[in-house]
Amino acid sequence: MARLTRTEIERLDRNDPLAHKRDEFDIPGGVIYLDGNSLGVLPRAVPARMADVVSREWGESLIRGWNDHDWIDLPARVGDKIARLIGAAPGTVVATDSTCINLFKVLASALKLRPGRKVILSDSGNFPTDLYMAQGLSALLEAGHKLKIVAPEDVEGAIDETIAVTMITQVDYKTGRRHDMRAITKRAHEAGALALWDLAHSAGAFSVDLAGANADFAVGCGYKYLNGGPGAPAFLYVAPKHQETITPPLTGWMGHEAPFAFDLDYRPAKGVDRMRVGTPPVLSLSALDTALDVFADVNMNTLREKSVSLCELFIAEVEARCPDLVLASPRDAQARGSQVSFRCDYGYPLMQALIARGVIGDFRAPDIVRFGFTPLYLSHMDVLKAAETLEEIVATRAWDREEFKKKAKVT
Amino acid sequence: MARLTRTEIERLDRNDPLAHKRDEFDIPGGVIYLDGNSLGVLPRAVPARMADVVSREWGESLIRGWNDHDWIDLPARVGDKIARLIGAAPGTVVATDSTCINLFKVLASALKLRPGRKVILSDSGNFPTDLYMAQGLSALLEAGHKLKIVAPEDVEGAIDETIAVTMITQVDYKTGRRHDMRAITKRAHEAGALALWDLAHSAGAFSVDLAGANADFAVGCGYKYLNGGPGAPAFLYVAPKHQETITPPLTGWMGHEAPFAFDLDYRPAKGVDRMRVGTPPVLSLSALDTALDVFADVNMNTLREKSVSLCELFIAEVEARCPDLVLASPRDAQARGSQVSFRCDYGYPLMQALIARGVIGDFRAPDIVRFGFTPLYLSHMDVLKAAETLEEIVATRAWDREEFKKKAKVT
Repeated sequence: MARLTRTEIERLDRNDPLAHKRDEFDIPGGVIYLDGNSLGVLPRAVPARMADVVSREWGESLIRGWNDHDWIDLPARVGDKIARLIGAAPGTVVATDSTCINLFKVLASALKLRPGRKVILSDSGNFPTDLYMAQGLSALLEAGHKLKIVAPEDVEGAIDETIAVTMITQVDYKTGRRHDMRAITKRAHEAGALALWDLAHSAGAFSVDLAGANADFAVGCGYKYLNGGPGAPAFLYVAPKHQETITPPLTGWMGHEAPFAFDLDYRPAKGVDRMRVGTPPVLSLSALDTALDVFADVNMNTLREKSVSLCELFIAEVEARCPDLVLASPRDAQARGSQVSFRCDYGYPLMQALIARGVIGDFRAPDIVRFGFTPLYLSHMDVLKAAETLEEIVATRAWDREEFKKKAKVT
Repeated sequence: MARLTRTEIERLDRNDPLAHKRDEFDIPGGVIYLDGNSLGVLPRAVPARMADVVSREWGESLIRGWNDHDWIDLPARVGDKIARLIGAAPGTVVATDSTCINLFKVLASALKLRPGRKVILSDSGNFPTDLYMAQGLSALLEAGHKLKIVAPEDVEGAIDETIAVTMITQVDYKTGRRHDMRAITKRAHEAGALALWDLAHSAGAFSVDLAGANADFAVGCGYKYLNGGPGAPAFLYVAPKHQETITPPLTGWMGHEAPFAFDLDYRPAKGVDRMRVGTPPVLSLSALDTALDVFADVNMNTLREKSVSLCELFIAEVEARCPDLVLASPRDAQARGSQVSFRCDYGYPLMQALIARGVIGDFRAPDIVRFGFTPLYLSHMDVLKAAETLEEIVATRAWDREEFKKKAKVT
């Protein structure tokens, strides 16, 4: 891409149909936040909602809150708000538990739907916890299940009649590489397999079309692009055709047909509700609920256009300014999520130096610096400033200090 | 028990060593809250902590919060605060997920430790979700496991060499009946079985001695006597002797030996940390963390003495004032938790009428009215007023109105 002039970049911001959304977030002064793919920023309406749910809903209603504020249906209400962003019909998504737990639920359900098949197919670009959960489930079942891990580019070719389910994260957490959900799902179905998608780096980042792709199951994260706060509840999706036939592995009272009948025997609830387990986490679900309201008037195609524009600008500026950094993300925007990564030998201290200057991205071993682009609160001028800061650190070797080489507990 | 005079009751409150604790809670005016066994009241320090964790920790630190505020170790820090209340050593309890999910983790771990045995023993007084989780796990494993449900009084006698694990809730949610943890655990071990305890109605209600009883596993709830808020994170306990040998069934990255190495293969973390799964729910864990500070200066034996005193007073007053109500709880305080229940044909509308007058307890089908006694924020005069209100409703048949007979969604 030819580089834009500063004037042209400023014009992109002036014409940005999403520019007004930035006011709906509280971003610390002096920070350019390129880590919304790890933990989203605080939506401005959340503190008041949290104060209200704590002091009024809990503090005043107490146990009556379950009826007075319909806490019991929060997982479904929040799920429906997420459904709109991922191409899912109302009543197919529930917000609950963590991504890991939800993955376990849908993966175990998928395996039970394909009893004669023993292979779970995933790829080495998947976020490790998904692989761990599949390994743990296979070990638990002691039924000969096997997790087969291939290179990301080999997924489609590896789908054959042995595969029970493909378990793929749509966007690679390291490189931002985006899988073709429609093609892989189609190929899985042709081979008689089911398709399970992890949307951790997709939901809220661009328009996802689960129903259009005919996906069977999906899970995703509430604290990245959905801005639900650290450790926010996650979500899961079950295609309508499977809702009445799946056998949930985690059969808690909130997934019972009549939770308050207190029967001694489990009977699954209708629809996706059977994938609920324990008492809903009302405080954290309320934060996510309000965070999602930011998306209410957002056209996801407009969001995607801006995301591509931000990412393209960043790639062009960094490549021109920092020759040590090698693009690790696909160059083709169609093959990327809303993230741009570079490889760099001194990636760890480089990122620490960048963070010290208020440009926050993150590092993934062994050598990836990773930048998430969240069109709701980033401008093109933010991107330019981030690239300028990166250039300055690289040019002056400002990263080459002991303080930036010390490993933190959490990276 | 002989009835006390009003003067004697007032004296009990004047001499109450826990009287000052009430100021640490925000209780709505006009409410006598006898439902802390269902959802605890709001500790006064929680709103400020929540505002701080939302606006400063999340809003300002953003992703840096994982290191700056040590979010990553919140489950262990909160776990250690709970450990003190349940007779567990530091490093044996983790606060995470829901009670149901935690039960699944420890139950599956227990079954793997007893591969030759197929029976999970529980009782009909257990909270149904525990039974559901065991049924779901058995169905998932397809290995011939069976949940055997006996009457509460038959548990000890039913323990034989077929039992893999006893899965017992210490305090019956309906009647308040308390199992003898030490005796059942001893009997289980004699038969070569493991003992798993659900402390949902125990933790924070009285002193529990998991280590002294030699319990193998335990789980419990954060939102009842621990006052962590609606749907607060739950906890689990693993005895030190099992920590390095158990195979967790839910193998998420937070239970990995090196979560931030992003290896493709799961390796369990040391100790109880391997029972963690996904990203910790920082907002709700923070509320629970602050709620637990209320217990810091509380002697659990003192708490128990007051609990018994409140319960005995309530039983004496209700039995004297309301002959229609039949005690459903054990009369012997040693056999009760911190709860008193009565049977009454018109229990449902009776409880609604009581709630309408600000005395909040709850109802459990078919005919149980249930009252939880939380010594940290209840006085003996509260108990007397509650009994007086109950008497007035019974005497005047004030419960006999259509508005009190309408069934709510959540009971």
